[in-house]
Amino acid sequence: MVSSSLRLPSLTSLLFPATTRYPATLRRTVCLRNRPLSGFATAPSGTASPETKSSEVDRLRSDRAVTPRSQDFNAWYLDVIASAELADYGPVRGTMVIRPYGYAIWEAIQDYLNVKFKETGHSNMYFPQFIPYSFIEKEASHVEGFSPELALVTVGGGKELEEKLVVRPTSETIVNHMFTQWIHSYRDLPLMINQWANVTRWEMRTKPFIRTLEFLWQEGHTAHATPEEAEKEAKQMIEIYTRFAFEQTAIPVIPGRKSKLETFAGADITYTIEAMMGDRKALQAGTSHNLGQNFSRAFGTQFADENGERQHVWQTSWAVSTRFVGGIIMTHGDDTGLMLPPKIAPIQVVIVPIWKKDTEKTGVLSAASSVKEALQTAGVRVKLDDTDQRTPGWKFNFWEMKGIPLRIEIGPRDVSSNSVVVSRRDVPGKAGKVFGISMEPSTLVAYVKEKLDEIQTSLLEKALSFRDSNIVDVNSYAELKDAISSGKWARGPWSASDADEQRVKEETGATIRCFPFEQTQGTKTCLMTGNPAEEVAIFAKSY
Amino acid sequence: MVSSSLRLPSLTSLLFPATTRYPATLRRTVCLRNRPLSGFATAPSGTASPETKSSEVDRLRSDRAVTPRSQDFNAWYLDVIASAELADYGPVRGTMVIRPYGYAIWEAIQDYLNVKFKETGHSNMYFPQFIPYSFIEKEASHVEGFSPELALVTVGGGKELEEKLVVRPTSETIVNHMFTQWIHSYRDLPLMINQWANVTRWEMRTKPFIRTLEFLWQEGHTAHATPEEAEKEAKQMIEIYTRFAFEQTAIPVIPGRKSKLETFAGADITYTIEAMMGDRKALQAGTSHNLGQNFSRAFGTQFADENGERQHVWQTSWAVSTRFVGGIIMTHGDDTGLMLPPKIAPIQVVIVPIWKKDTEKTGVLSAASSVKEALQTAGVRVKLDDTDQRTPGWKFNFWEMKGIPLRIEIGPRDVSSNSVVVSRRDVPGKAGKVFGISMEPSTLVAYVKEKLDEIQTSLLEKALSFRDSNIVDVNSYAELKDAISSGKWARGPWSASDADEQRVKEETGATIRCFPFEQTQGTKTCLMTGNPAEEVAIFAKSY
Repeated sequence: MVSSSLRLPSLTSLLFPATTRYPATLRRTVCLRNRPLSGFATAPSGTASPETKSSEVDRLRSDRAVTPRSQDFNAWYLDVIASAELADYGPVRGTMVIRPYGYAIWEAIQDYLNVKFKETGHSNMYFPQFIPYSFIEKEASHVEGFSPELALVTVGGGKELEEKLVVRPTSETIVNHMFTQWIHSYRDLPLMINQWANVTRWEMRTKPFIRTLEFLWQEGHTAHATPEEAEKEAKQMIEIYTRFAFEQTAIPVIPGRKSKLETFAGADITYTIEAMMGDRKALQAGTSHNLGQNFSRAFGTQFADENGERQHVWQTSWAVSTRFVGGIIMTHGDDTGLMLPPKIAPIQVVIVPIWKKDTEKTGVLSAASSVKEALQTAGVRVKLDDTDQRTPGWKFNFWEMKGIPLRIEIGPRDVSSNSVVVSRRDVPGKAGKVFGISMEPSTLVAYVKEKLDEIQTSLLEKALSFRDSNIVDVNSYAELKDAISSGKWARGPWSASDADEQRVKEETGATIRCFPFEQTQGTKTCLMTGNPAEEVAIFAKSY
Repeated sequence: MVSSSLRLPSLTSLLFPATTRYPATLRRTVCLRNRPLSGFATAPSGTASPETKSSEVDRLRSDRAVTPRSQDFNAWYLDVIASAELADYGPVRGTMVIRPYGYAIWEAIQDYLNVKFKETGHSNMYFPQFIPYSFIEKEASHVEGFSPELALVTVGGGKELEEKLVVRPTSETIVNHMFTQWIHSYRDLPLMINQWANVTRWEMRTKPFIRTLEFLWQEGHTAHATPEEAEKEAKQMIEIYTRFAFEQTAIPVIPGRKSKLETFAGADITYTIEAMMGDRKALQAGTSHNLGQNFSRAFGTQFADENGERQHVWQTSWAVSTRFVGGIIMTHGDDTGLMLPPKIAPIQVVIVPIWKKDTEKTGVLSAASSVKEALQTAGVRVKLDDTDQRTPGWKFNFWEMKGIPLRIEIGPRDVSSNSVVVSRRDVPGKAGKVFGISMEPSTLVAYVKEKLDEIQTSLLEKALSFRDSNIVDVNSYAELKDAISSGKWARGPWSASDADEQRVKEETGATIRCFPFEQTQGTKTCLMTGNPAEEVAIFAKSY
């Protein structure tokens, strides 16, 4: 019934037929608050506006509602992306068009991280995306990890190229090629840069935001004089990602270290932040690699130390990508659609003016404009939806589906009483609705800011409690298997071999997501071998 | 003597040998204010620090100074890019690495334009860079214009692809493919978007920032219901570019319309801003295209109008790129190096503390920090260069070469008198130096802001006067040829044929840069044919 395809008409065309035919008052009686969007199916195709040919009406009908999350998580995810106009499929298999609303979330991610990167001494720059094929081959485990996923340019300007060019899947190789030319002495270190760029990986199974042939990311690259400095940097960056996830996106990620099998191709150590999605699958949301001297040895990136000895630099790299947008959707969304944490929401407050008679319109719109003005001046990201082509009910549904944290309703009675109605996206129905909040700017601004903070906190707490109630401490392989097969994450002591880890993967579908930084004290016994273990690991199925 | 290669050591390694060997005081006597960098050649290679092997010493020597601009403009340009660490060559022919300082200029361009685009109703989004080859072929003049420059991906994930993919040279085709799915009714219009992205054009003759295989740009794409709206949009965007060029970059561009021969492949009309570089060659610094219905007809991008009739949309596209950074270098730079307009300068003020004795150091640095703090708080982008690995003289040269608009010098006597010395980058020597400016924050901040404004204005005036003194009004082909052969721009009435325009190009090397918006009144006679002419055209050699 519900299409899982992203090939949707824009939401503006999900609309009821042309406004000229149905005056606002009539439409309002058809489209009530919280009336399901399927109510629009009553529009007879005969009277539909020109663009709703019968085949399109079918499409409109089939795309009207979001599949309930509990019914089919994957269909729900794709429906939300389509209905909230976050992304669309590109013409090439596995590529994604990031639409303005989805891109605005990415911009919010960029704005925050870009400042943090600069505060910690990194400069932005830009490396070419075409990398000579021979570069990829220089670091043995790197080529092994990436060669199955490469896109190759073989023709340029109408001619077959002498050397195939790799469209960057990541930039360690070209970065090291350049670092080798820029780094001469210990005085050139540390060298700490970042780039915001597109990358290409020829993935077979794709999913919007989560895994696409091309995606957007930032990749940090640093070179240091000592292994201690590199290790400190790698840890610092995973800490910045962790704080970003918790404080901005309300995603309670678990930071930790990857197992050897899951370490980045070319790194000594990979740190990760692992997030639990609404279907309890794990999402690797960001990584920071201590590259040791692997790339500097492969590319001869050396410096003269204070004693005049030539040394290879110690390096890190770290990245988060547009995948984070997928993480936000799958952490907070519900049956109604997207739910955005206020700090990352492109629109934090939507104002919906309500009027029946034309005589009411002026007063209501004027009050709504004043409220918008007051909030905007106070730094709140606010949208006034004053179009008269849509009913208030339609707008309520639309903006709820778009995940706007707060809605302010202003009707004629509110204007009389100089107050507004405020509804929380995260508390459905009457419980989330408060009447009679004063329109007086200082009162309203304070109230709205407080509510936004409350929502931010509440989303994090909800996600945290969901996460913790779905992690099971296990002490044997049998317990691990039980936990995984019931859809949960398993946390248990682990000191077994790579082969054992591989066996868990094959038998349960779960992998070690990380050895979390936060470890319980006390002696531990490996759940698989019964040998002493230093650490607990977290196992889960993942995206 | 001076290498035109960009393959330079980082400037930090242009330094005098290890500081431990030469105490600050000794170094200061060697490296005086305005002493040419070639003074460093006296460093005996035998005592050089470990990284300066003899071959490197040669490189250091040869790269020490910037070729005088008057001597060889191209060599000067490449030297400035290398010495100011703006960019470097990538490993693939014709590709460019944009280094942090060059990228910071691009970020300043982005920051300004991004706000203007949003203010005028455009949303950012992102389209995939891989375009099916068949798309490019759909618009006849588009494929003709772009096919010689395409980079093609033919292998993905280890397999030959069924359809070759074009790495985007521009996105009109894929944009229209998506617009066709999103646009249904007049209510979906106007659709106005922008993307910041990398693009690839397989250019044969490349030059950093000006023409590279891959470059960064923004491309705006809009769809409208009427040709009037599209035309208004195309003009609005060239107006935004014009204002940006004048007000932010102090480049007095000439906005106008391209001739038919020079119009974008697939456009009805191309508007352009043309800038005169220091060598009097023209640089096309930004374009805005009225695409008419060319792409909408090729891709079937239609909407139902208010009467239910299906119509093709009317479109525009517009772009500026990292080429603008090259334009800034070539407009304002001088023999000393880069000269940045304050509004676009990543660093507007550099503070150089000066001390001889260690007893002076604390007082000087403390005063310098206070000054930095005061300026920073006032929103001035300021850098305090307090390293003791460099002499003040070295720092003066270094930051002048980097084009910082203002330098503040603080020595022990300044600390005593509670004042500073302020030097303007654009006024060389003593004339640009003012002593005894009070350190008192409100006085100093006001003074600095006033000077920055003065510099901004002065750079624009200088460029304007240079531009206008190098444009010759011509009334015959002979006069045109004279003007061009003396390196100037020729402006004259033109109503001749495409063939005549082609002939001018072949015989003089000059092309019509634009029919400027600003036209003189009165009757005009075509300089080539003697027929009546509606407009004057500007002819020039160009990049």
